[in-house]
Amino acid sequence: MTQNPSPVHLATVEAAGQPMLSPQLEELYRGFEKELLVPLWTEIGDLMPAHPQSKAQPHLWRWADLLPLAARAGELVPVGRGGERRAIALANPALGGRPFISPTLWAAIQYLMPGEDAPEHRHTQHAFRFVVEGEGVWTVVGRDPVPMRRGDFLPQAGWNWHAHHNATNKPMAWIDGLDIPFQYASESQFFEFGREEISDEEHITPDRSRSERLWGHPGLTPIGAPDGGPGTPLLCYKREHTDRALADQLELEAEGYDGVVEPGHAAVRFSDPRTAADVLPTIRAEMHRIRRGAETAPVREVGSAVYQVFDGSGTVTVGSEEWAVTRGDLFVVPSWQPFSVRSEAGSTDSDSGALDLFRFSDTPVFEALQLHRRNPA
Amino acid sequence: MTQNPSPVHLATVEAAGQPMLSPQLEELYRGFEKELLVPLWTEIGDLMPAHPQSKAQPHLWRWADLLPLAARAGELVPVGRGGERRAIALANPALGGRPFISPTLWAAIQYLMPGEDAPEHRHTQHAFRFVVEGEGVWTVVGRDPVPMRRGDFLPQAGWNWHAHHNATNKPMAWIDGLDIPFQYASESQFFEFGREEISDEEHITPDRSRSERLWGHPGLTPIGAPDGGPGTPLLCYKREHTDRALADQLELEAEGYDGVVEPGHAAVRFSDPRTAADVLPTIRAEMHRIRRGAETAPVREVGSAVYQVFDGSGTVTVGSEEWAVTRGDLFVVPSWQPFSVRSEAGSTDSDSGALDLFRFSDTPVFEALQLHRRNPA
Amino acid sequence: MTQNPSPVHLATVEAAGQPMLSPQLEELYRGFEKELLVPLWTEIGDLMPAHPQSKAQPHLWRWADLLPLAARAGELVPVGRGGERRAIALANPALGGRPFISPTLWAAIQYLMPGEDAPEHRHTQHAFRFVVEGEGVWTVVGRDPVPMRRGDFLPQAGWNWHAHHNATNKPMAWIDGLDIPFQYASESQFFEFGREEISDEEHITPDRSRSERLWGHPGLTPIGAPDGGPGTPLLCYKREHTDRALADQLELEAEGYDGVVEPGHAAVRFSDPRTAADVLPTIRAEMHRIRRGAETAPVREVGSAVYQVFDGSGTVTVGSEEWAVTRGDLFVVPSWQPFSVRSEAGSTDSDSGALDLFRFSDTPVFEALQLHRRNPA
Amino acid sequence: MTQNPSPVHLATVEAAGQPMLSPQLEELYRGFEKELLVPLWTEIGDLMPAHPQSKAQPHLWRWADLLPLAARAGELVPVGRGGERRAIALANPALGGRPFISPTLWAAIQYLMPGEDAPEHRHTQHAFRFVVEGEGVWTVVGRDPVPMRRGDFLPQAGWNWHAHHNATNKPMAWIDGLDIPFQYASESQFFEFGREEISDEEHITPDRSRSERLWGHPGLTPIGAPDGGPGTPLLCYKREHTDRALADQLELEAEGYDGVVEPGHAAVRFSDPRTAADVLPTIRAEMHRIRRGAETAPVREVGSAVYQVFDGSGTVTVGSEEWAVTRGDLFVVPSWQPFSVRSEAGSTDSDSGALDLFRFSDTPVFEALQLHRRNPA
Repeated sequence: MTQNPSPVHLATVEAAGQPMLSPQLEELYRGFEKELLVPLWTEIGDLMPAHPQSKAQPHLWRWADLLPLAARAGELVPVGRGGERRAIALANPALGGRPFISPTLWAAIQYLMPGEDAPEHRHTQHAFRFVVEGEGVWTVVGRDPVPMRRGDFLPQAGWNWHAHHNATNKPMAWIDGLDIPFQYASESQFFEFGREEISDEEHITPDRSRSERLWGHPGLTPIGAPDGGPGTPLLCYKREHTDRALADQLELEAEGYDGVVEPGHAAVRFSDPRTAADVLPTIRAEMHRIRRGAETAPVREVGSAVYQVFDGSGTVTVGSEEWAVTRGDLFVVPSWQPFSVRSEAGSTDSDSGALDLFRFSDTPVFEALQLHRRNPA
Repeated sequence: MTQNPSPVHLATVEAAGQPMLSPQLEELYRGFEKELLVPLWTEIGDLMPAHPQSKAQPHLWRWADLLPLAARAGELVPVGRGGERRAIALANPALGGRPFISPTLWAAIQYLMPGEDAPEHRHTQHAFRFVVEGEGVWTVVGRDPVPMRRGDFLPQAGWNWHAHHNATNKPMAWIDGLDIPFQYASESQFFEFGREEISDEEHITPDRSRSERLWGHPGLTPIGAPDGGPGTPLLCYKREHTDRALADQLELEAEGYDGVVEPGHAAVRFSDPRTAADVLPTIRAEMHRIRRGAETAPVREVGSAVYQVFDGSGTVTVGSEEWAVTRGDLFVVPSWQPFSVRSEAGSTDSDSGALDLFRFSDTPVFEALQLHRRNPA
Repeated sequence: MTQNPSPVHLATVEAAGQPMLSPQLEELYRGFEKELLVPLWTEIGDLMPAHPQSKAQPHLWRWADLLPLAARAGELVPVGRGGERRAIALANPALGGRPFISPTLWAAIQYLMPGEDAPEHRHTQHAFRFVVEGEGVWTVVGRDPVPMRRGDFLPQAGWNWHAHHNATNKPMAWIDGLDIPFQYASESQFFEFGREEISDEEHITPDRSRSERLWGHPGLTPIGAPDGGPGTPLLCYKREHTDRALADQLELEAEGYDGVVEPGHAAVRFSDPRTAADVLPTIRAEMHRIRRGAETAPVREVGSAVYQVFDGSGTVTVGSEEWAVTRGDLFVVPSWQPFSVRSEAGSTDSDSGALDLFRFSDTPVFEALQLHRRNPA
Repeated sequence: MTQNPSPVHLATVEAAGQPMLSPQLEELYRGFEKELLVPLWTEIGDLMPAHPQSKAQPHLWRWADLLPLAARAGELVPVGRGGERRAIALANPALGGRPFISPTLWAAIQYLMPGEDAPEHRHTQHAFRFVVEGEGVWTVVGRDPVPMRRGDFLPQAGWNWHAHHNATNKPMAWIDGLDIPFQYASESQFFEFGREEISDEEHITPDRSRSERLWGHPGLTPIGAPDGGPGTPLLCYKREHTDRALADQLELEAEGYDGVVEPGHAAVRFSDPRTAADVLPTIRAEMHRIRRGAETAPVREVGSAVYQVFDGSGTVTVGSEEWAVTRGDLFVVPSWQPFSVRSEAGSTDSDSGALDLFRFSDTPVFEALQLHRRNPA
């Protein structure tokens, strides 16, 4: 009868590279358990694989399934202090039911009813919002109301106060991305509640946030702007700019000039205008446009990525999975799983006549730590 | 009867910030489970605490308990291809019996019998060796044999080929530190087997490695040295230098000059001579010397640290734990747990008359990602 | 009769800090001259002043005087290989008639007649064009035709092939800024002739250059863009963006928010979208807007700056000089000379109702070498 | 009769690329002169050469000539406030008698008599001392006395207070290197007088400076060291380390391993232990050892370099000059002039049996500004 049974449980196995079975070995393993020790030789295959073997698996969530559930939550679940947000996370089926779309990333659909406010708080987790449809919500960051509309990307670096308010008479849904699982695993999270109510002044609904008025001009640094913390000071990357940038790349390609990533594949990375680095220290965000009928070459990368179809339709391959996808659909590409996508030749329901994909990933973590690999490089 | 039962299991609870219980809510939660969704409002307390609440707990392993078990493994467990190393990892009692001393760090005792070789391999995990007692083993890194003796610190950046050989007729033990849990959680690991046998040339046993001859001169960069990858090209930080640097700091303090971290507390960080950054992209390593009778101020830091007593004895406080420690003892400080140490006034068994502590931590991860905090700063 | 008379000529002087006059001292000085030696003690006042004492002096050139001379040169001086450009440099009156507006900077008016081409070449000197009036010329950089119109800023990093062509039936003038004096003094210049004729394809006259189509979208990095050399890949910073950014800052100020440099003073720095650093490694370029009636606080800076009035009128103070200035006027602020400007209260001839100043300076040199100082900081 | 005659004087010339001579052109040029304008087309050949054409010329100063003149100055010229230092600068014969060994660098012999003090001051110019023979002087930097002995290199970053005292009964000479000409040309210099007398405490004569005790341990960063300004905190790079590092490289070469710059040519760069960058923001310093009989490959570099023979003898080629050199001799290599050196086969008067060369250059300026070129690269 043990007072403090060890969590370590070692089993001898008969296998190449393992010690010979013997009573002495059993006794040694019992000693290891007692002293909280685990040998490398029994674990190395799991811990040190030849290449990343993700615990996560490829998975697709259909917008047509998510949105009604979010709308139903809008009726049943209040938004307020304590629960903080009406956000519903996508749980990778291979991660034990935890609200993690990958070992490092969080993706959720958030839903706000007409006239609702989500209360102010701040946290070290880096976040963004991306809007696949609708409008009418303003995210108030450091008291600066930022409008949200289809195609807008709103990064939200850690430790900034923020709230949301729906200024219209329609509900609105959008996608939140955060590094919650990464910070949960690495144990670096701080959180603080803010004010219960945002002020009347913050309930105004400008067309451009103050951050855009300071930082949203191409190649122009505002000399008098106050210093900020980590992450971009530009709080909204508007669709009109992203759309034009992608269109420009495909036109340059058509004229015979450089610019696209590969034939028929335009892409931009959302960047911090103060450094040109990723918008968030742990999250990369990009928009890709695949010309109708074009197909990307398969790529593997260290780290995980999440995609949402912004426009058009196509066929996606992740590892051994293949899905037909359309507007709003979300899927995850686990570490080192090959990924490619083909834009549907006959697609006519798209603004651009192409397949537009929003993508976010944990790549900055691996680049900062010199652990990133990509194949082909 | 479900073919593919969801790993998501949601329970309604009656609590502040939670939606009111109702059959409709139950139905909604069943819908979430089916679609692999988890609401934030049920998880936020665990995921977004006010400050890091480590899953790990403070724990002490006594050298006097570890060494005999390692020696016994020396008799029972062969070293060779497959198991790769006779390394025995310290398993934090709160991490489910996994061989992780903290959520990000691996610490193990490795043991090599007279004449044994550990086979060559390489991996992206960053590693180091630290020797608390003994000598006689050479670590062969990129075909450069590096001697290991009491007090030496041998960093080993990821993706370098390496092997070990014991050139003497005595066994030898040392400590390995790696970022295995971090790379396991973030899924960035690659591994390759090397040659089965190292060459005769690598079995030579020089007093200084070639890396030390190129890079081990203070403030002097070898202009013709070949480029290397991430992590320090200096493969051994010898005790004589560390010891003198610490002694110099305490003498400067005694003369009234700056240099120590706080009264009676000298410390050096092992640094990459090409950049002066940490020796490894994910691991910080330091040596601390606490003058007899001195005590450090309590400090909390984001991220976890592991200490080994190199010399002397004292009393360590981690969170609510307090331990008397002596040569070879190892302990872990989980994220944001307060840590302090007092050097024993009457210690006479120490080379320096002080308490010498080797420390390693995951701090570079958090600094690179702008997530590091320290209190007091 | 000396075969090789020394360029060194030393005179003894009777002064504090100088050695006592004597025949022996005279003999010593003759020995110094013979051996090409100069003592510090006779030179220190000139070489090591308490603060920078610029060899240059403040000076103003009036656009109304420059433009007719440039136009006359258009009639008399051909543009072609050898002379390369019809550029006329502003010569600081205190720099011995050399074509240097300051010890580090070159400023010139360039003039191109209808239908003319300036031949292709490249050089390590970093350059830019700024247009105070007119349009119709395209600068062809790396075969990319870039339009030039009033208010546009066109940086041109070193070692890029470039040519100009005037596609209209009117002459056009603009300002060139380069680091010619700096590279002349430090001896780092390389130069190569390019093609004698640019191709038909480069004679096209697009509204936006290819560089703008790739790099001119705020906060959006083109993932597939080819790597480039030092200096910004964005070849034109169009007036519409600069104008709007400055207007936004003054509006934010009027609404009570941060953003301006000081009351009534908006300013943006032209930045490399790949790094957010200065557009050129040796030259900083900015646009300033001083609200009608506002005045800037006096500032001294290490290094020299050149201003051109883009719009409006006002009064400028540089050291002990004061000038009323209006559109097109150019002036230089030597190192460490105090500078301030007042926007004319009654100005009505300005687009923005304010005084708009284009500014360029050598600040990146001093920042890179940690020699920059500004007072107030 | 002009009141304010222009410094600009333009002459028409009949040459390719020049405008046709005419009275109108003469009139235009008079207009340019009046308005302080200089055309590019008359100057481009001088200002924008195909590659750097240094205004300086290669030159050699013999130690046997310099030292007696310095000693004579020791007798005739006092050291004190005003003149500040008994330093005698090497004046490049092609730079108009100015005390500049190159357009950017200053090199001087400094001489201090027994018991003398050179008064405290500070300046933004970056400086170092290098000792080819003798000992007995301490340089006091920020109140830290630093001993100077044969082979020691003492960097002295700008804006640090410093003084010298000769604690022995023998005079001592050494070499000063500074960036005086660079800061003179770019106009960034500040200077302040310090205390008239240094304290008794600073007259102590330790064997190691406090800076060495903190920063002089290979690969070890003192965690508690105070922050400093630009430039290395390590105030002395002792000969014993430099000598061993060079010997190690040649031994590695003899054993068949990497490490030397080229066959028979070992070299180390003095580096800032906090960054591994150059010791000073504007000056690179290195020690080279050429094995007896070996010869270096010719190299051209942007920027100028100064060498002093520390030990041994050999033959140096700079541009079209060739000199036999021996201990103490100094020479300058102007920008882009080819340089090579051959160690004398029969040299027996050298400590190492090789030719040891101390070198300093302005390379960090060009690297920081992305203007550096080297051929072969």
